[in-house]
Amino acid sequence: MFSGAQISLYPMTGDFVGVIMSALGALDPYRDQLRIETDDISTLLVGPPEVLFPAMRDLFVATAASGIHCVLSAAISRGCPGEPDDAICASPQLNGPREPIEQRKDAAFAAIAGAPHTGSTIAAQFSLYVMGEGDHMDEIYGCIDFVKRSGVFDRSKNFCTRLGGDAGPVFAALEAAFCKFGPPEGHVTIDLTVSANSPTPR
Amino acid sequence: MFSGAQISLYPMTGDFVGVIMSALGALDPYRDQLRIETDDISTLLVGPPEVLFPAMRDLFVATAASGIHCVLSAAISRGCPGEPDDAICASPQLNGPREPIEQRKDAAFAAIAGAPHTGSTIAAQFSLYVMGEGDHMDEIYGCIDFVKRSGVFDRSKNFCTRLGGDAGPVFAALEAAFCKFGPPEGHVTIDLTVSANSPTPR
Repeated sequence: MFSGAQISLYPMTGDFVGVIMSALGALDPYRDQLRIETDDISTLLVGPPEVLFPAMRDLFVATAASGIHCVLSAAISRGCPGEPDDAICASPQLNGPREPIEQRKDAAFAAIAGAPHTGSTIAAQFSLYVMGEGDHMDEIYGCIDFVKRSGVFDRSKNFCTRLGGDAGPVFAALEAAFCKFGPPEGHVTIDLTVSANSPTPR
Repeated sequence: MFSGAQISLYPMTGDFVGVIMSALGALDPYRDQLRIETDDISTLLVGPPEVLFPAMRDLFVATAASGIHCVLSAAISRGCPGEPDDAICASPQLNGPREPIEQRKDAAFAAIAGAPHTGSTIAAQFSLYVMGEGDHMDEIYGCIDFVKRSGVFDRSKNFCTRLGGDAGPVFAALEAAFCKFGPPEGHVTIDLTVSANSPTPR
């Protein structure tokens, strides 16, 4: 299994470098569980979902604490056939046979109920892609049903689903969508946009 | 067929609203061929690929002309089974049976050779997702081969492929990747990030 994300932070200020540098400390608790590589477009995080999603959450919450309008954009992936297995990505969430989809939804609700609250209110939208399966839409519809009852659902949009609320349950919902739908060894990706402090009306 | 994108523009300046408003005129030549809806996270563009990609290109080139570090992020989609058919999306590129993959690559090279040059140098990275096909990786590997010989290939990264060069051929390559690989009525998406004026070394 190989899993991780290409992430980018966009603080809408001329001091974007300073804002990003100030926020990077939020990744420190996760650094020994992730491989991290940065270029001028994005930062690669390689590691298991239970590290990856909290790391993205804490990085974004630290950036949003600046009060500046900021966005985290991420291409999140697991099980891509073109990527090599990597021991750092081993995850108990992606082991063994799949339970029936209703059981997986219940586990997803439990993960949200147990998520820490951060005090940071965010807006997010994401698209879940399940590859290599004739019935990939069944898994996506299952995920949509879970998200609609997750407590952080905002609304459906063309091509994506919009979430809102405290960053804790929002990122827990994203992690559950990523891990609990689609085959455990399958190729599943999320295209994610997270926004805070926007001056634009919803 | 339903096709389009959720796009967002991120100018890294406190005057991000002003920069975006100044650039929006670049969409004017395309407005009667697109349906456009905006909220605080993204702008929806619904229309055929041959309108969508030039519209994104011209919008981004106009934004980059500010000289400010800016990013365009887009979730681009065609053929999603959850979306209704829409006459505005009808495209000659997505009609009829598929030619052999080598012929499609040749058509893609011709599209790049015929692309207008904009004078704006950009960096881009994208992930192509082909859903609902057991052999989706064959189409992706075919697309990767095309991109590597496209003249705008920069390098492969985990989860995505990096392009660079004039915005004209770069967006032509993206449009070809989106249209010429995967089944014509299939569900195909691109997760795209385009960047200009970054102060960070590559």
